[in-house]
Amino acid sequence: MKILRSLHEAQDFIATQKCKGKKIGLVPTMGALHKGHISLVETSKKETDFTVCSIYVNPAQFNNKEDFKTYPDLFDKDIALLENLACDAVFAPSHEMMYPGGTLKGLLKLNFGLLEKELEGKYRPGHFNGVGVVVSKLLHIIAPHKAYFGQKDLQQYMIIKKMCSDLSFLTEIVICPTVREADGLAMSSRNLRLTDKERQIAPLLYQTLEQAAQGLKKGKKANEVKSWALKQLVDNEFFTPEYVEIVSLKSFELIQYELQEDVAICASAHLGKARLIDNVIVSV
Amino acid sequence: MKILRSLHEAQDFIATQKCKGKKIGLVPTMGALHKGHISLVETSKKETDFTVCSIYVNPAQFNNKEDFKTYPDLFDKDIALLENLACDAVFAPSHEMMYPGGTLKGLLKLNFGLLEKELEGKYRPGHFNGVGVVVSKLLHIIAPHKAYFGQKDLQQYMIIKKMCSDLSFLTEIVICPTVREADGLAMSSRNLRLTDKERQIAPLLYQTLEQAAQGLKKGKKANEVKSWALKQLVDNEFFTPEYVEIVSLKSFELIQYELQEDVAICASAHLGKARLIDNVIVSV
Repeated sequence: MKILRSLHEAQDFIATQKCKGKKIGLVPTMGALHKGHISLVETSKKETDFTVCSIYVNPAQFNNKEDFKTYPDLFDKDIALLENLACDAVFAPSHEMMYPGGTLKGLLKLNFGLLEKELEGKYRPGHFNGVGVVVSKLLHIIAPHKAYFGQKDLQQYMIIKKMCSDLSFLTEIVICPTVREADGLAMSSRNLRLTDKERQIAPLLYQTLEQAAQGLKKGKKANEVKSWALKQLVDNEFFTPEYVEIVSLKSFELIQYELQEDVAICASAHLGKARLIDNVIVSV
Repeated sequence: MKILRSLHEAQDFIATQKCKGKKIGLVPTMGALHKGHISLVETSKKETDFTVCSIYVNPAQFNNKEDFKTYPDLFDKDIALLENLACDAVFAPSHEMMYPGGTLKGLLKLNFGLLEKELEGKYRPGHFNGVGVVVSKLLHIIAPHKAYFGQKDLQQYMIIKKMCSDLSFLTEIVICPTVREADGLAMSSRNLRLTDKERQIAPLLYQTLEQAAQGLKKGKKANEVKSWALKQLVDNEFFTPEYVEIVSLKSFELIQYELQEDVAICASAHLGKARLIDNVIVSV
């Protein structure tokens, strides 16, 4: 497995693969790889000829400094895992390579409009700008045919898809199902921060979303379902929910009444030192 | 000369050239080609192995509908001219290809901060967002090694350079000197809108900038020089100036006093049905 450290090394190496006729797949990650990432790499290996996994903890997308500082770093373990999966290359640039000069101030700003008004966009100001910037960089450096993202970060997927469409990136953006633990908890690098006790309680988030989905399917109004779900989380002594929202899967606008279109029920909650997010999709 | 009409046709054709080891140069234009464009194509031909000229009148960068509607269309003449120059390919997409669905509303917004606060950014709201979007598209579709822009549109060059740096585009952005008529008027497709009388008066803009530059070199304060230059244009019965500004060549911030760094003296003025812009650079 080739480990690429510099922008031009990566660009030249990938260009050579492309000239051999290979279709390139990119799996962008911040490391601390779990089964969700593994599933993205496996899907890329099925659908393309050459899979690149990027490992880069992007400072520009953290609105919380503590979260950035304590983000798990398991680089050697990640590399061993990717070797095992027969991933073809890893792109692991330095901060200096990605943000020459080291400052994030004064960077160009990307505004995704309505898509980032609610949910993560509202609770993590600046987050999606940082995501847009780093994904642009990765797509320019690797220029893959396909790039793979997980459904857990649904709003991120929608924002990246819009960016790629509006700016005519020629990369196809692929969304893959959320991978879950046996008890339903969505895989996340931040789950590492949960104590044993919190880990036992954590599946409540997904269970609540699943029950909320049942409510919607039975014809209940979105507002009622949302209030009910929020109460489940508020009533639990360990959870501190930030939001539960039901949004149009097309526009990400908030839905209040009976379903007329496919929606996602999305939630975020603090549990101990972790901030968890999850979502389920309900089709009409 | 190959004429490329679709995004994927262009992408595949250029990729083939790259795999042959050719360095690609891109000259983005809105057609109605003049000697300024010719000089960009000639520079690209000198510096790269395969020159693509794009011809696309980008609706997203016009803040004035009338300007868009009346923008000169000389496609057949442009093609003949490029054939003569032995340009290698032309990329001429349709609006539907560049903006599928036809609507510009709701497009992702690019914010360039301080760089777009003054001058064209102030007088043409939305202009640089449209420029950023279309240049991103062109750089994604053609993915050239180098792209060529004229110094007449100095603020545009700076914005594109920032965008390419902040988002790690791997294209080198090259600026080429403004090409002028014998009497000093900067070449521009919009000069076609001048009456014979206006065409005779038009060089006043450049003459004023040149005299202003002399003033700065003699140690006059930027503010005084600026007021003097503005008065020259206001006092002329045909010109309606929008601005004369002296800006840092590095940050594009307004300069008021004695020169401490390299600056550009930039001006915009309406003359009949044309809006002219020009600039000269003064080094310390």
